[in-house]
Amino acid sequence: MVVSEKVRGFHASGSAIRKMFDEGLRLKERFGEENVADLSIGNPGFPPPRAFSDALRRVAAAPSMHAYMPNAGFPDVRERVADSLRTRGLLPGAKAEHVVMTTGAAGALNVTLKTLLEPGDEVIVIRPYFVEYTFYIDNHGGRMVQVESAPDCGLDPQAVAAAIGPRTRAVIVNSPNNPSGRVYGPDELDGLAGILRQASTRYGHPVFLLSDEPYREMVYGERAFVSPASRYENSFLCYSWSKTFSIPGERIGYVAVHPELQTSDWPLLMGALSMCNRFLGFVNAPAFMQRVIAESLDAEPDFAHYEVKKDLLCAALRRGGYRFAEPEGTFYIFPETPGDEADFIARAKEKLLLVVPGSAFGRPGHFRISFAAPETTVRLACRLLVELNA
Amino acid sequence: MVVSEKVRGFHASGSAIRKMFDEGLRLKERFGEENVADLSIGNPGFPPPRAFSDALRRVAAAPSMHAYMPNAGFPDVRERVADSLRTRGLLPGAKAEHVVMTTGAAGALNVTLKTLLEPGDEVIVIRPYFVEYTFYIDNHGGRMVQVESAPDCGLDPQAVAAAIGPRTRAVIVNSPNNPSGRVYGPDELDGLAGILRQASTRYGHPVFLLSDEPYREMVYGERAFVSPASRYENSFLCYSWSKTFSIPGERIGYVAVHPELQTSDWPLLMGALSMCNRFLGFVNAPAFMQRVIAESLDAEPDFAHYEVKKDLLCAALRRGGYRFAEPEGTFYIFPETPGDEADFIARAKEKLLLVVPGSAFGRPGHFRISFAAPETTVRLACRLLVELNA
Repeated sequence: MVVSEKVRGFHASGSAIRKMFDEGLRLKERFGEENVADLSIGNPGFPPPRAFSDALRRVAAAPSMHAYMPNAGFPDVRERVADSLRTRGLLPGAKAEHVVMTTGAAGALNVTLKTLLEPGDEVIVIRPYFVEYTFYIDNHGGRMVQVESAPDCGLDPQAVAAAIGPRTRAVIVNSPNNPSGRVYGPDELDGLAGILRQASTRYGHPVFLLSDEPYREMVYGERAFVSPASRYENSFLCYSWSKTFSIPGERIGYVAVHPELQTSDWPLLMGALSMCNRFLGFVNAPAFMQRVIAESLDAEPDFAHYEVKKDLLCAALRRGGYRFAEPEGTFYIFPETPGDEADFIARAKEKLLLVVPGSAFGRPGHFRISFAAPETTVRLACRLLVELNA
Repeated sequence: MVVSEKVRGFHASGSAIRKMFDEGLRLKERFGEENVADLSIGNPGFPPPRAFSDALRRVAAAPSMHAYMPNAGFPDVRERVADSLRTRGLLPGAKAEHVVMTTGAAGALNVTLKTLLEPGDEVIVIRPYFVEYTFYIDNHGGRMVQVESAPDCGLDPQAVAAAIGPRTRAVIVNSPNNPSGRVYGPDELDGLAGILRQASTRYGHPVFLLSDEPYREMVYGERAFVSPASRYENSFLCYSWSKTFSIPGERIGYVAVHPELQTSDWPLLMGALSMCNRFLGFVNAPAFMQRVIAESLDAEPDFAHYEVKKDLLCAALRRGGYRFAEPEGTFYIFPETPGDEADFIARAKEKLLLVVPGSAFGRPGHFRISFAAPETTVRLACRLLVELNA
């Protein structure tokens, strides 16, 4: 066989979603794109903020160089990122030296896990979780441990406490959460921080927190976003502009280390993160996009269209009698399937409505709706959702 | 400890080169940039080809989208790459379906190794070799096996044959070669292909060839480049525009699979490569750069300035009585050190000449000169090289 056994296994197990995507493409070809309500993928196809596009054109017009820079990124770009993190209260005390520019949050998570994990180390994720964590942890010899969330996908620090053991190296949290849309509050986060401090003391080594927060600015209503990384010193904050700037194809983000992380050797830690950026083949975040981001990172994207679509979908779900929690952030909703999950997904597909089964996130009996789709698609989906549970 | 044991080990073992880089920066600060002859790194700081910069501005001006595309890249970009590979005779029969766009050749190699390697599989590299192969192979659980080259860093198929065993999964070749500047000829490559076919038959599974060829277009004199991947069907061709377009910071390249590679399941193989692109956190090659490259990939960069610098350095090395083979490609020369390697590197540094020790490439008693530097720096280095061996 050409493809390794493990990759073949992943390929086979991932095939449910892939088959649906492929089927989606076939359905669009057969029935016309406008007749298929594809709410499966979180791929914002909207223009980026004006400030980003303007910066893009400015940087492109300048006689720019595209050479290697230090693997951690351009020093001035890292400084802009740190300034923004500090000024906005996301990570107090952050300086350029705490930041490594990466190819998106996926790059940030992989670089961090590569830096931290000994073979067989455990990494806790909270159900429902972004399915790619499975592969990121496995890439670096880690073992994923799943923990149940509180009702409505809230954070349950006691459940995390019960799952921590001597081999626990890190916990990954994702707020605002994909797929649930939950935004963790300061009390939940402080509860988690307390648990992690206790566990660190008990086992004699820090249990790290990896905060994956690409939906950070995408929060609705009263709830304010608090970075999980800001409430616990042994944290790595992983960010990407993919979702908030609608530029997922560009692969630009960073990892920022909490300035009070307990280490006797800061140069080693930051050197290791940069080195892993190189070793893993990323080498550095794309040079041109680093420059563009540095000139536009304080842009405030307009998420009003997402809120409109969220409200349309929530109204339809209520009308249809679905059980669900209204999302506090992201562009996802995660309702319960009325009846059997596979059966519901199949019936939806028959009606040309494409959503992702909850089992893909370790939480069967649910389905994920993405409203990173045009409003016309969302309106079509609303009608179909009501029909499906009629 | 925060940083894992293995990464700490890599960090310590790599520190000789890093210390030199750091010392180089210190030296430049202390003695003035113009007085330090830094020929250590292969980082072309020259403007990219006109066609690239023009395309960059055109793409930036268009109302472009930056959304996810399939993990393998934009279909039209993959088609342009395949057309170019076919038209230029680099990979006969190549079609879009054989190409996966990656974040440079480093991404291409990592994606391919992740796809192929079972734990403990052996991957052969040929001394002297690009030091990063060590980490790429280790990332995916492989074991690196080093093979000696023929005199003057030629390819020695019999040495490869002697190193192949039942666990050999792949051989990495790099022509034009970093650090030696050697370009393998068709006879050497056919010899290697014969050996690999024999070994594949003997062990009942294909031994793959990974051709890492980012210096492909950078060939001097009579020697014509032949892609190693074009001479052996079970090949993966890994390319990057980093060196030839002077855009190493942008991370854009691809892996192209030989159309006659022996597999019973092409969709699985190509699906696995795309999936590994996603799993490893690359997700996809940067969208914007994919578009720019598609509009400029047939540009013919002007390498005349490299040839001038090569000739200056070769003349100085001859004058200084160094033993070396004139490079046939790349922007590197790999002479023998007169006397002890560490002693020579130290004496060079005292004179503010920075070069990389051969032991960093698995070939002690040599040093690597990079002429990806401005001509004034090269002229200064020429003077110092002659003095050093006076």
